[in-house]
Amino acid sequence: MGKLRVIGIGPGSIENMSLRALKAIENSDVIVGYNKYIDMIKDLVEGKEVYSTGMMGEEDRCKEALELSKDKNVALISTGDSGIYGMAGLILELRKDEEVEVIPGITASSSAGSVVGAPLMHDNCNISLSDLMTPYEDIKKRVKLAAEGDFVISLYNPKSKGRNKYLMECIDIIRGFRKDSTPVAVVRNALRDDQNYTLSQIKDFDDSTVDMMSIVIVGNSKSYLKNGYFITPRGYASKKRDVSRR
Amino acid sequence: MGKLRVIGIGPGSIENMSLRALKAIENSDVIVGYNKYIDMIKDLVEGKEVYSTGMMGEEDRCKEALELSKDKNVALISTGDSGIYGMAGLILELRKDEEVEVIPGITASSSAGSVVGAPLMHDNCNISLSDLMTPYEDIKKRVKLAAEGDFVISLYNPKSKGRNKYLMECIDIIRGFRKDSTPVAVVRNALRDDQNYTLSQIKDFDDSTVDMMSIVIVGNSKSYLKNGYFITPRGYASKKRDVSRR
Ligand SMILES: C[S@@+](CC[C@H](N)C(=O)[O-])C[C@H]1O[C@@H](n2cnc3c(N)ncnc32)[C@H](O)[C@@H]1O
Ligand SMILES: C[S@@+](CC[C@H](N)C(=O)[O-])C[C@H]1O[C@@H](n2cnc3c(N)ncnc32)[C@H](O)[C@@H]1O
Repeated sequence: MGKLRVIGIGPGSIENMSLRALKAIENSDVIVGYNKYIDMIKDLVEGKEVYSTGMMGEEDRCKEALELSKDKNVALISTGDSGIYGMAGLILELRKDEEVEVIPGITASSSAGSVVGAPLMHDNCNISLSDLMTPYEDIKKRVKLAAEGDFVISLYNPKSKGRNKYLMECIDIIRGFRKDSTPVAVVRNALRDDQNYTLSQIKDFDDSTVDMMSIVIVGNSKSYLKNGYFITPRGYASKKRDVSRR
Repeated sequence: MGKLRVIGIGPGSIENMSLRALKAIENSDVIVGYNKYIDMIKDLVEGKEVYSTGMMGEEDRCKEALELSKDKNVALISTGDSGIYGMAGLILELRKDEEVEVIPGITASSSAGSVVGAPLMHDNCNISLSDLMTPYEDIKKRVKLAAEGDFVISLYNPKSKGRNKYLMECIDIIRGFRKDSTPVAVVRNALRDDQNYTLSQIKDFDDSTVDMMSIVIVGNSKSYLKNGYFITPRGYASKKRDVSRR
């Protein structure tokens, strides 16, 4: 009897992975996941059976992982958190009686946030711009409501060849609710070897450096840039009380 | 010359901490943070200078940590992610020329999500119900817009003695936009020794088990309960395409 562990490896460097994820990979017989993600942890998977599936569809991959877990310990790899645009959901949807454990990881908005300062300090949301499973009209509506609600907004899957206009359109929607100086961060490959980022004000935002390896974070009405950091205050400074006791 | 590291230790168990956070604590001379958080990692801090500040205000604590970092390596401890309702923001606001590193961690919504299944799979937001720094009217407005936008909603700081009605009021606001069977999870001490949780439908939600050690997660319009798991599908199933190539 094996077990299937759906593992969030964090941004993609072993040091930003949890000890639990690390041990779970070490204790697995079979590793399933995209080539690119498995490459990131190749030191850990040496000598193990690997199903590196650049080709197979997501649903087939999940079924395969569930099937394999009947006899062996299987690690199904997601980047970031396995429960945020990761593999945990589909596995639990398809699961019959296999034993499944979900292991969380540091999601991309947290990783990218730490690279540019502290943009997520107050209420914040994650929105994916991928329209593969969600109509673009719904995505735009959600972006508008998030902007109106003064959330810090992290845009996952911000741009791909098939939909290279969405990001700029969504930034324009947000701009309707924010001042011109609102900070925007583009973080590419956060906490990976080839990390890079840009910080700008929303009025000057330029999407040319953005691709699918990037995440875009837009501040709330109180966010600001200072000494190269993107900072969102924890609350609204007008109410300055001591919060030590909560 | 020392350095200040603002460290997210994750939910509060060493195994769910990143290797980077672990090493950063090991390499620090001084540990600063709440008693309760330092207690969670006491095996790591043995023999170190500890400023365990149950009493000091948050701003004073940050100033103290910055001052100490001029001569020593200081670790300032947050639970979860140091950049989400954590210490990173205030440190960067107060920083002059001290060297500061922000180390992210697994935030409470990800930890709690993994305990109950995969509730956060699609667009999701984090909202704090603490009104210490944000007027309650603004919080309610944000909750309403998030509900209207069909976000999965994670409520941090859901209840304390001084404001025990907010949670139920906010759940009622969300209920206005959701069907009766929408899942709600209350996860208390996620991934800590004394973890426990309840799953219910929004129509039956009962806040009696909720306290400040808990987080409350409310599903979107597609979320459901199955075999004891809280599942949010990754998209809207009507559009069933293969997403393997993105
Ligand atoms: C299918 S989603 C997977 C998200 C992942 N499960 C997580 O929790 O971070 C892929 C998107 O996540 C974002 N992403 C993931 N890792 C990233 C990193 N290290 N740096 C920047 N963006 C990243 C990008 O926007 C990318 O298009
Ligand atoms: C001041 S916030 C700190 C959040 C933290 N920086 C994070 O990213 O998780 C404190 C609130 O986080 C939530 N929380 C933190 N750790 C938790 C855990 N292990 N289980 C459940 N809720 C938790 C609770 O809602 C608590 O009231």
